[in-house]
Amino acid sequence: MRLEHDFLGDMEVPDDAYYGVQTLRAMENFSITGEKLDADFIVAMAIVKKAAALANIATGRLDPKIGAALVTAADEVIAGKLHDQFPVDPIQGGAGTSINMNTNEVLVNRALELIGEAKGRYDIISPNNHANMAQSTNDAFPTGIKVCIIRKSKSLLKALNYLADTLDKKAVEFKDVLKMGRTHLQDAIPITLGQEFASYASAVRRGIKRIESAMLSIHTINMGATAIGTGLNAEPEYIVEVARQLAEITGEPFVTATNLIDATNNTDGFADVSASLKITALVLIKMANDFRLMASGPRCGLNEIKLPPRQPGSSIMPGKVNPVMPEVLNQTCYQVLGNDVAVGMGVENGQFELNVMEPVIAFNIFNSMRYLTNAVNKFTKLCVENVQANEEQCQMWLDRSVGIVTALLPHIGYENSSMLAKEAYNTGRPIREIILEKGLLTKEAMDHILSPEEMTHPGIAGKDLLEKE
Amino acid sequence: MRLEHDFLGDMEVPDDAYYGVQTLRAMENFSITGEKLDADFIVAMAIVKKAAALANIATGRLDPKIGAALVTAADEVIAGKLHDQFPVDPIQGGAGTSINMNTNEVLVNRALELIGEAKGRYDIISPNNHANMAQSTNDAFPTGIKVCIIRKSKSLLKALNYLADTLDKKAVEFKDVLKMGRTHLQDAIPITLGQEFASYASAVRRGIKRIESAMLSIHTINMGATAIGTGLNAEPEYIVEVARQLAEITGEPFVTATNLIDATNNTDGFADVSASLKITALVLIKMANDFRLMASGPRCGLNEIKLPPRQPGSSIMPGKVNPVMPEVLNQTCYQVLGNDVAVGMGVENGQFELNVMEPVIAFNIFNSMRYLTNAVNKFTKLCVENVQANEEQCQMWLDRSVGIVTALLPHIGYENSSMLAKEAYNTGRPIREIILEKGLLTKEAMDHILSPEEMTHPGIAGKDLLEKE
Amino acid sequence: MRLEHDFLGDMEVPDDAYYGVQTLRAMENFSITGEKLDADFIVAMAIVKKAAALANIATGRLDPKIGAALVTAADEVIAGKLHDQFPVDPIQGGAGTSINMNTNEVLVNRALELIGEAKGRYDIISPNNHANMAQSTNDAFPTGIKVCIIRKSKSLLKALNYLADTLDKKAVEFKDVLKMGRTHLQDAIPITLGQEFASYASAVRRGIKRIESAMLSIHTINMGATAIGTGLNAEPEYIVEVARQLAEITGEPFVTATNLIDATNNTDGFADVSASLKITALVLIKMANDFRLMASGPRCGLNEIKLPPRQPGSSIMPGKVNPVMPEVLNQTCYQVLGNDVAVGMGVENGQFELNVMEPVIAFNIFNSMRYLTNAVNKFTKLCVENVQANEEQCQMWLDRSVGIVTALLPHIGYENSSMLAKEAYNTGRPIREIILEKGLLTKEAMDHILSPEEMTHPGIAGKDLLEKE
Amino acid sequence: MRLEHDFLGDMEVPDDAYYGVQTLRAMENFSITGEKLDADFIVAMAIVKKAAALANIATGRLDPKIGAALVTAADEVIAGKLHDQFPVDPIQGGAGTSINMNTNEVLVNRALELIGEAKGRYDIISPNNHANMAQSTNDAFPTGIKVCIIRKSKSLLKALNYLADTLDKKAVEFKDVLKMGRTHLQDAIPITLGQEFASYASAVRRGIKRIESAMLSIHTINMGATAIGTGLNAEPEYIVEVARQLAEITGEPFVTATNLIDATNNTDGFADVSASLKITALVLIKMANDFRLMASGPRCGLNEIKLPPRQPGSSIMPGKVNPVMPEVLNQTCYQVLGNDVAVGMGVENGQFELNVMEPVIAFNIFNSMRYLTNAVNKFTKLCVENVQANEEQCQMWLDRSVGIVTALLPHIGYENSSMLAKEAYNTGRPIREIILEKGLLTKEAMDHILSPEEMTHPGIAGKDLLEKE
Repeated sequence: MRLEHDFLGDMEVPDDAYYGVQTLRAMENFSITGEKLDADFIVAMAIVKKAAALANIATGRLDPKIGAALVTAADEVIAGKLHDQFPVDPIQGGAGTSINMNTNEVLVNRALELIGEAKGRYDIISPNNHANMAQSTNDAFPTGIKVCIIRKSKSLLKALNYLADTLDKKAVEFKDVLKMGRTHLQDAIPITLGQEFASYASAVRRGIKRIESAMLSIHTINMGATAIGTGLNAEPEYIVEVARQLAEITGEPFVTATNLIDATNNTDGFADVSASLKITALVLIKMANDFRLMASGPRCGLNEIKLPPRQPGSSIMPGKVNPVMPEVLNQTCYQVLGNDVAVGMGVENGQFELNVMEPVIAFNIFNSMRYLTNAVNKFTKLCVENVQANEEQCQMWLDRSVGIVTALLPHIGYENSSMLAKEAYNTGRPIREIILEKGLLTKEAMDHILSPEEMTHPGIAGKDLLEKE
Repeated sequence: MRLEHDFLGDMEVPDDAYYGVQTLRAMENFSITGEKLDADFIVAMAIVKKAAALANIATGRLDPKIGAALVTAADEVIAGKLHDQFPVDPIQGGAGTSINMNTNEVLVNRALELIGEAKGRYDIISPNNHANMAQSTNDAFPTGIKVCIIRKSKSLLKALNYLADTLDKKAVEFKDVLKMGRTHLQDAIPITLGQEFASYASAVRRGIKRIESAMLSIHTINMGATAIGTGLNAEPEYIVEVARQLAEITGEPFVTATNLIDATNNTDGFADVSASLKITALVLIKMANDFRLMASGPRCGLNEIKLPPRQPGSSIMPGKVNPVMPEVLNQTCYQVLGNDVAVGMGVENGQFELNVMEPVIAFNIFNSMRYLTNAVNKFTKLCVENVQANEEQCQMWLDRSVGIVTALLPHIGYENSSMLAKEAYNTGRPIREIILEKGLLTKEAMDHILSPEEMTHPGIAGKDLLEKE
Repeated sequence: MRLEHDFLGDMEVPDDAYYGVQTLRAMENFSITGEKLDADFIVAMAIVKKAAALANIATGRLDPKIGAALVTAADEVIAGKLHDQFPVDPIQGGAGTSINMNTNEVLVNRALELIGEAKGRYDIISPNNHANMAQSTNDAFPTGIKVCIIRKSKSLLKALNYLADTLDKKAVEFKDVLKMGRTHLQDAIPITLGQEFASYASAVRRGIKRIESAMLSIHTINMGATAIGTGLNAEPEYIVEVARQLAEITGEPFVTATNLIDATNNTDGFADVSASLKITALVLIKMANDFRLMASGPRCGLNEIKLPPRQPGSSIMPGKVNPVMPEVLNQTCYQVLGNDVAVGMGVENGQFELNVMEPVIAFNIFNSMRYLTNAVNKFTKLCVENVQANEEQCQMWLDRSVGIVTALLPHIGYENSSMLAKEAYNTGRPIREIILEKGLLTKEAMDHILSPEEMTHPGIAGKDLLEKE
Repeated sequence: MRLEHDFLGDMEVPDDAYYGVQTLRAMENFSITGEKLDADFIVAMAIVKKAAALANIATGRLDPKIGAALVTAADEVIAGKLHDQFPVDPIQGGAGTSINMNTNEVLVNRALELIGEAKGRYDIISPNNHANMAQSTNDAFPTGIKVCIIRKSKSLLKALNYLADTLDKKAVEFKDVLKMGRTHLQDAIPITLGQEFASYASAVRRGIKRIESAMLSIHTINMGATAIGTGLNAEPEYIVEVARQLAEITGEPFVTATNLIDATNNTDGFADVSASLKITALVLIKMANDFRLMASGPRCGLNEIKLPPRQPGSSIMPGKVNPVMPEVLNQTCYQVLGNDVAVGMGVENGQFELNVMEPVIAFNIFNSMRYLTNAVNKFTKLCVENVQANEEQCQMWLDRSVGIVTALLPHIGYENSSMLAKEAYNTGRPIREIILEKGLLTKEAMDHILSPEEMTHPGIAGKDLLEKE
């Protein structure tokens, strides 16, 4: 055990711990969720500290030897080391001070070790004076959140692109599978299964754009704001340099906010991110619901698509398989919706020069991104990739439908169409059969008018036939 | 009474009514909220119908005489006439069919009147065949919602700009009012009241950008989708023309969606709009809360600003005045947050080729926009315009504060600063008084270091003094 | 015009107005929603004022002549008169002061008229001193909300009971309609349509209990709390008497809160009410969704029930009818969910001795109750009352199903059951047909085992046959 | 590795794993949150299985030797063993089938081991036939959730009682600390700090009642419902017995639902539980906000209470301490509010005979309960226990206040009171000083009227003095 000290007194820290007294206090104060910090967030905080150290070296304020040790320590954390030294709870009071100080302490103790000094020798390298130099929790912490969100967005966007691409691949595969289109869950007019899948892909791509657009606002940082945005103790050259360093390390075009005070007390950019996740989730819910509806049955439902079986569905009925992948996607999306509410609560509760609720905001955004990435990847790989059209069943429904009569109106008139509809409803016989029986159209004409191409694209189906006459 | 007919049978319609049988059915089915349709929405639906009529005339499908009568009727509704002929409830089943048919019926009956025919002569001009030509509720209704939202955004954006401009004006007025900055509601370091107001303005302007950006996506329409997005019965030339007409009538750059099927079954664009309102509301809540905190007292609170008194606050205490304008802004924003949840519920519940929940989506967005416009205008005019700084009180707090000691660190060292802080805490005396008493700084130097300019901008306060030495 | 005065100055009030200067100020400050106060709320506020006047007369503080005039004026408002004299907006700052003063002013001016004096003669009868005697907005207003909620609960509970009773009536009607039960939208084992309807009724009745239970807590009032719950200026005898009077007037067992301070600054009872509405809405959403699923088709969907047609569903397809009544119920429930969020925002934002957000809380609860009452009544009357089972189709699905094989396991063994299932899947033939063909059971035995009674109640289907052997 | 088999095929299971093939499939399908199952939930599922095994033994259907082994295995899990054998993700598709089967597999493999057989010998003891006997996921899983919620409620209720008791203890300690009461954050009339703390305690106790009441509904279980509530394969005697066993094992009065079908497809009881947590959170948010407001300062804020310092608040200002414990309580409550939305989404999305969204419902309720228990305990122990009144400051505010003039009205008249108020506002001098200077009251009379007792309880302050005259 080594003894560490802050202005509230002394505490014993385990000898092998890289964290220090302030982390210890936080562990005692905040054991709320029992969950670990997101690994990307630990990395992101280290990136922020590295950028600050480099900027402080560049402006001549930080001793290059100390700076170099801090940068090396940061690089180790960025490479995935020492993550077990971040024991603070993600939901915490103090506006992230504990996460910021946990990072400072780990970097400093590792840096001390690197220059051959004992852990805890804060008189040589100090968490507050060196690791936190020209910073405050109030600028380092939200900047860390932003770096983390951008990191996490890469895998989420990759997952969504994978989903959209797979849906589009399936749209091509299903382009000739004509089926009944439905509105209000009621029979409408024909569509192709490919068109439906293309519409899912199109909506997912809009989600991708939405998230990308939310990411843009998150590139505006408030490094240099220090405590309240006035920049007390942060030299103007440092402010420029730290943004440059952060951009260089991450390859992301970070820029300093025009109004650092606003950028410190308002956190609406995080609400934008969460909204982009939420609205994408709304779109995914609709799609997952359609999958479950189309896969319903197999004997007593629509049965238009076959989902790859993933696990036995019941211990009672042999052979029952449930649509577990859309179901888990749905539930993940519900979680994202709930998390968005928690984010909103956090964002609105800033006061004066700071929003102290940033930890709960970050916790929910990180969780939403991680869950969504996982769920979208699993859903795509284990479900969409191998979904099959049940063409026969799609055709069966279509043959039963009365809605296709709509396409015949210009050819056989309203009277005949109505008569056809009525007879179909009364007898349960297919429309096509009755048309031929009545000699209303030749089989060739009928097949042309009722072909997928004619029925599912803008304009009057079989218009060429009308013009020929 | 005249007799009208649809495929469910006959109904008697009052002779003077411009609406018809389908509106009557809707009135019987849906008396839910008892509220009227938003006036902008009635206008927006008429605009859509006018654009469609013009496009149908242009493509030669609609008899120019009938078309002209319909356009004239639409122009009258756009000018604010006949709005009492839209009695359907804003929350309704049928995906907006009743609002669409109410519009069709009013336009047709007025058009019949214009050409000298009796109301109800649908054999001459028909709600379905003429007013609704080449349309479906499923394209005309969401397009009407979009036209309405864009209309409403004009006054909302104007209100928000008025607020931001007024805040900026106040920021200039308050630029020299130095006051205590606070984080965690705890004393931090100095800031100016002007900086705070500028930060509010900056955040509101981000809200304006956010709403403007959401409006962009809403310019993508699905006219020509007809029933399910496949465009059955809508000729390609018509699809191009109707978007062109809509753009011309409104002066807005409407474009046809690339994927009309997606554009018909997904409504996430409405969730984008609602999110932009919600997040702007989050920012306004924070600002309104700050107003209430700063105006707290007057004797037993912060009392840093004086809000213009708007109404007596209590029947018990003479002279009590409450911050009613920020309070009503807060509550309006809570409503916007609630409405956003209703919108989300609607958006996620599309199925297959349509989202039948569009009426509740529209109802909530329209309400949020109207309420927010009103609340922001009132708040700006009746509160922000005449808010006054209580400079004396701001200075009093600052003089009591210990936080300003932070700015002295580079000048008198940590030891002296700590001693000062301790003595101030123990005696309750102002820091400035003790500094002079101890002869730590000349009055001139002290006043320079602790001047607003030095304390509230990036860098070390009084750095020039250090360099001189 | 008459001149009225408060401590902010003079204002001209229209001569025929019963409201006064404070109402005028509120009209200028708060034009947010443009909606009217709920009529039940106007009545409820008058009831509170009547109870207070009677209590003040009883304790000897209020001149009986003035008191009598105020009581008569209140009785008129309770009877529905003068409601057009309440022009203040439901969303308002000031914690309801404007609604309270609007009520005080109307009652006083009407009382003045009743005793032959001119409106505005507040020196004779005063809104503050007489109508508001021993009260504050902070006790009268939340008590008025409670009286209103209880009033509104009568019609809501009546509507829900009507729904539950009708569902139960239908459950009896459908008790022998055997159909496929589904989990995960996948075929499971048989159930009767009657059992499903009984389960809806059961869930709705739990909603009724939930709302009734929430009403209980709302009977605790804080009359006598005056400004902050300490009861300054409210004599103990008055506190007892006003609760007694309120109970007598309304026939409701109102009781005074044990802790008046808590009862004034906490509004969680309103959150309880809103939650009871929200959770009932969740149950209704599930039921409405089931209705829409069962009515899906008619040719390309489940088509197990027939909803009464309420209005034409499409202008394109002759004969299309949509499930508009469940759709409007769904949307109303989404609104209730959104409103619950607004209520929660209000409830959490109390500060110190008061929650100033009560107006938005009340607005949302009243709206939710009114909308829900209307939607439930319409849904029951226009949909549930006349919903019909499509027995033939239910039987058709069942005959196609493989799931019923589960019931045969104890009789023909696992081997035979599996063989049956496989053959049914492969050939698409009904299980029953194959059983008889294979001679696995007599028709009599098969019909007994697969009878509704045996298949849909706890235990082994056809257990008596096993025991006979 | 051992080979296991289900109807989708073979999979290799690690030899030392107690889980089996279905758990393996779930691990592959659902890696969403990466979080572990709640330990109480693992225990709860084992309790359900134990009750079922005992009931199956009692009704003679389960071989007593197999049953005894299963019961012993369940007891081990109940005692905290083998929890590392439950690797399935809490958010999962399949309505909890994977958690149910994970439990079945672990119990069976441990039971096999206990009777000296090899893991995987499902021909001897089977997860489906023995561990799951007379059950379905659809009854065992929701019953497990209920058992878990009730378990977790014990520690949550204990935490809330600890908080309420501590608040009450503090209320006694602070009973004579007179301070300014505030409404709208504006000075109102006096109250004691003790009264405020008592009101917090009162509100928390209402939260306790609310949660206890929600627990009641959760005692209704659907064991015996099997797949869809019709009870196919569950003998009536078993249904009675399993509830009895569950009650005996847990000491909780579990009862079987009257309508098992309703109890299987509706999950509104979980929404009741979540609402009780949410509304309690709303109350806690209000209280935590009050704590933060009262502790604001210390030099430039209200500074009425002193929170125990828990950790350094800033790296910039020496001595800054932030209210981290109320801040973390606030954020935890925001999370509970978000989780309630996810629960609501789950509850409304039941379809037909089942709600497949139960996993996400359970996940959120468990998290909310665990987080809230932790946050309330920490807040009570580390903050409320040692909060101190700053009596001097409270008195200082009161002396400055003008509001106390209200209590003098009956004694010195409205004229004098107004004059006093005016002079106090103009000069900034205390009311008391002016009273004595003007000789309006004797010091004795003044002190009596303005005593805590007189000012903070119902009635006219100093009424006895009036009566004496």
